[in-house]
Amino acid sequence: MSLLVIGTLAYDDIETAHEKRQGVLGGSATYFAVAASHFAPPRLVGVVGQDFAEADLAKLRSAGVATEGVEVADGKTFRWGGRYEADWNTRHTTFTDLNVLEHFQPKVPEGFRDSKFVFLANAAPAVQLQALEQVEHPDFVMADTMNLWIDVARPDLESLLRRIDAIILNDEEARMLTGESNLIRAAGAVLGLGPRLVVLKKGEHGAFLMGGDVHFSLPAYPVQDVVDPTGAGDSFAGGFMGYVASQGSSEPEVLRRAMLHGTVTASFCVEDFGIEPLAGREGDELAARFDDLLGIVTV
Amino acid sequence: MSLLVIGTLAYDDIETAHEKRQGVLGGSATYFAVAASHFAPPRLVGVVGQDFAEADLAKLRSAGVATEGVEVADGKTFRWGGRYEADWNTRHTTFTDLNVLEHFQPKVPEGFRDSKFVFLANAAPAVQLQALEQVEHPDFVMADTMNLWIDVARPDLESLLRRIDAIILNDEEARMLTGESNLIRAAGAVLGLGPRLVVLKKGEHGAFLMGGDVHFSLPAYPVQDVVDPTGAGDSFAGGFMGYVASQGSSEPEVLRRAMLHGTVTASFCVEDFGIEPLAGREGDELAARFDDLLGIVTV
Repeated sequence: MSLLVIGTLAYDDIETAHEKRQGVLGGSATYFAVAASHFAPPRLVGVVGQDFAEADLAKLRSAGVATEGVEVADGKTFRWGGRYEADWNTRHTTFTDLNVLEHFQPKVPEGFRDSKFVFLANAAPAVQLQALEQVEHPDFVMADTMNLWIDVARPDLESLLRRIDAIILNDEEARMLTGESNLIRAAGAVLGLGPRLVVLKKGEHGAFLMGGDVHFSLPAYPVQDVVDPTGAGDSFAGGFMGYVASQGSSEPEVLRRAMLHGTVTASFCVEDFGIEPLAGREGDELAARFDDLLGIVTV
Repeated sequence: MSLLVIGTLAYDDIETAHEKRQGVLGGSATYFAVAASHFAPPRLVGVVGQDFAEADLAKLRSAGVATEGVEVADGKTFRWGGRYEADWNTRHTTFTDLNVLEHFQPKVPEGFRDSKFVFLANAAPAVQLQALEQVEHPDFVMADTMNLWIDVARPDLESLLRRIDAIILNDEEARMLTGESNLIRAAGAVLGLGPRLVVLKKGEHGAFLMGGDVHFSLPAYPVQDVVDPTGAGDSFAGGFMGYVASQGSSEPEVLRRAMLHGTVTASFCVEDFGIEPLAGREGDELAARFDDLLGIVTV
């Protein structure tokens, strides 16, 4: 079924312990859409500047992403810079140039408003709410957020949490949002804020899913050579939501398998810079890694 | 089938962010044996001092532990002190009084020498080897170790690794032993040192098992209130080895279920100080938590 994502497109400058890359095509919606495209054709809503390469939009389209919702605004594309410590566990943001993102007001094209599955990538909660209001009758809405919004836009975030089905958070965000250091308690407290499902990401330690009728925990896929973790979380969300949309259901058995699909798309994402390691995969490569992961976790 | 453990019995002084306890019955073999006793009656080899309470030996016997191999030596029982940070992730050793352990030479009683399943709890590798040599024809031997021995007794440890079937390590030990920071690579490198199986413990992030014909990864049981993590690793090993011994097999399907049983015994262990939370459990309580964990990890 139809899948809509509202989020950022960006050019990233990335520095790892081994390599530096500049102007890498990135952004939350980009990673999400490419990951999701392996399961369901995503509709993308976002904004870019006049410097955004037509070739990059073409890459997304060739991955099956509908780009009519990508607005080209006056100014430059959002740019972000990040540097990773050698152990991958610490990321420093070196700069954030919002550029066209600063005054972005998402406009969901007429043809996208009937979308049934919706992912609100990380943005100001007011912007996420504004996007959501343009979708007519969504069946399943998942949102992402970040520490900044928990800190500076908590009332908006709480409004958002009452409007969505699922929230995806990392461990630090879950602790910050709830004040609970134990992650199981934190997840329970998040559910108390409104959503019926929470996906809690723990990076290299995997992720778990908690809701009224489901509790599922999964280790990360054992990637031997991480090259660049940028986009891993959005790639996870893309694989997860892409699979859920492809099944047209958010039943527990679908959600559990969706956790594996998200883990697989995230594992491809980190094997190189940008979207290439994910966009270049064939269906049978994803299926083989899914089976491999299933073998690793099956009792 | 018969299960033998060689390791320490101790009195521990433990300090958490919430509470202090002195003279808590502990030690690697104690925790291991109590956990294992839920699956197979363990035979225990170790040493205590003349201050060791007969009531504590009685506790072990009433849990089904055979204590003929517990030598009472001149002097005092091994004492250890530890303090945990509020996040549980950091443990400081406040003191180590080896006492009778200093000159301990394990003597495996005649009646224990036919043991088929053997756990060599953390000790100097030379002592572990000395114990192992007294077992006639073991089917499956697992050993634990610690950073100290990797540092000061590496040649002995390497000899040991060539003699055993399985090694259980935490993440830090695996990295130190192999020089590999990626845990999957580290586990592979450990296998290159001799054992056919490695169990890699990641504390609150679970554990994985790797060998030539098995790779299995499991999250920790979601304990909401950790009271004292002392003994969790040995309780894991006890549940794991107890189940393996009860099945008389180290086939992959047995090892996978053993990982769950170890996770369950460790989860009970951390819910209070000492062996009580584990010794006091009924079989159906363990079975219920096993089923709960199985539900959380089944795709």
